[in-house]
Amino acid sequence: MIMRNMVIKIAYDGTDFCGWQVQPEGKSISSEIITAIHKITGQTVKLYGSGRTDAGVHAYAQTANFFTESKIPAEKFPTALNAYLPHSIVVTQAFEAEASFNARFSAVGKIYEYKILNDLFPSPFWVNRAWQIKYDLDLPTMKEACSVLEGEHDFKAFMASGSYVTDTVRTLYSLGIEKEENILTITAKGNGFLYNMARIITGTLVHVGCGKLSIADVKAILHSLDRTKGAITAPAQGLYLKEVLY
Amino acid sequence: MIMRNMVIKIAYDGTDFCGWQVQPEGKSISSEIITAIHKITGQTVKLYGSGRTDAGVHAYAQTANFFTESKIPAEKFPTALNAYLPHSIVVTQAFEAEASFNARFSAVGKIYEYKILNDLFPSPFWVNRAWQIKYDLDLPTMKEACSVLEGEHDFKAFMASGSYVTDTVRTLYSLGIEKEENILTITAKGNGFLYNMARIITGTLVHVGCGKLSIADVKAILHSLDRTKGAITAPAQGLYLKEVLY
Repeated sequence: MIMRNMVIKIAYDGTDFCGWQVQPEGKSISSEIITAIHKITGQTVKLYGSGRTDAGVHAYAQTANFFTESKIPAEKFPTALNAYLPHSIVVTQAFEAEASFNARFSAVGKIYEYKILNDLFPSPFWVNRAWQIKYDLDLPTMKEACSVLEGEHDFKAFMASGSYVTDTVRTLYSLGIEKEENILTITAKGNGFLYNMARIITGTLVHVGCGKLSIADVKAILHSLDRTKGAITAPAQGLYLKEVLY
Repeated sequence: MIMRNMVIKIAYDGTDFCGWQVQPEGKSISSEIITAIHKITGQTVKLYGSGRTDAGVHAYAQTANFFTESKIPAEKFPTALNAYLPHSIVVTQAFEAEASFNARFSAVGKIYEYKILNDLFPSPFWVNRAWQIKYDLDLPTMKEACSVLEGEHDFKAFMASGSYVTDTVRTLYSLGIEKEENILTITAKGNGFLYNMARIITGTLVHVGCGKLSIADVKAILHSLDRTKGAITAPAQGLYLKEVLY
């Protein structure tokens, strides 16, 4: 029996789920996929995701792998799995990898996107998909703050309490902001992200944008290595896992 | 008692509604707004929309008016109404107009947008908000077809059966297509649209894009004045009322 290491890419709207990881309560994205894999292969697999995403967080391209004895050609997996998945979860790609590939441990980086609806009114098209900020945001100063955070730093002040990670040094290859009409998109590319790091960075940038924090404050927060010195954590609903880098 | 003619602009995701108009079954967008107006003014008003939108059709800026004795300042209406509306309906503007203004009869034109997801796979972010077309679409030829339809024509062949409109001449000021990544946006601006006209135009353009219809066919359909000669009606879910012109 030949075991094949199948890699899949998955887009999902996280609204209706308790997150990526199987939880005692609520439907998780990975359990929906495991169920769909069982339906088409008859096997109950262990699914290795590149990392967990919290409840409400979305993905354009989460990556996961599983081992299967199934003879279904890789390119048939997406359509076959999608037939058993809810519309909010879509497998967009499948390919075979060497046995040593692991979606989590082989990853060398990730790209996250955060969407802000910068408008006086909410939008029916961004419900659960963006963070609405009503006041004007100072984009040039926010971009200056981005350049403070880019590079290799100890991001301990940007990690949610409750995480047991001890090495908190990460490299942000790039951190940028684009505005198109009333939507701000923050894009963060890094070799790894601490727990809630993308959302705490976003909260910090928004506080810079509305004048609650200066560039000097951002530097002080970063150097403090103390989460309690920092800004709010942006809500999960605006966060998208855009790509996992291998 | 002074009656004020209040005009509101409304954005909505039409997914969960039976359309704009009050129906015997199902929740309608206008009835949700009438209920919200009752909650804040105590009055049961008649709400005049610029036109009906079908079940599943969305709007960036539907326009409607109603007469009220309420003394609430116009600029307070949006936030007050939104407090009683579901997240899928958002009032984005309110202002007072002369008594003679009527959202339907004062309109001099409309802009509709149609969203096509041109991809092999569906997207969790476009569920109920775009029409998925899997095959490649020939954009240059679709644009050529647009220019055939632009201008003043008898659009009888582009009107769904069951409509009792007798004057079927309309002017399409512009009809264009833009592509951004895997999303095609068709924008139609006209002095009026027959029943299902925007969706039949979209169905026609898609049939042109996949080679089922030639430019000569589109001309022949237009000149036939016969709906049965034409292409399919695109699904309601991709259609957005973008603006009502006054």
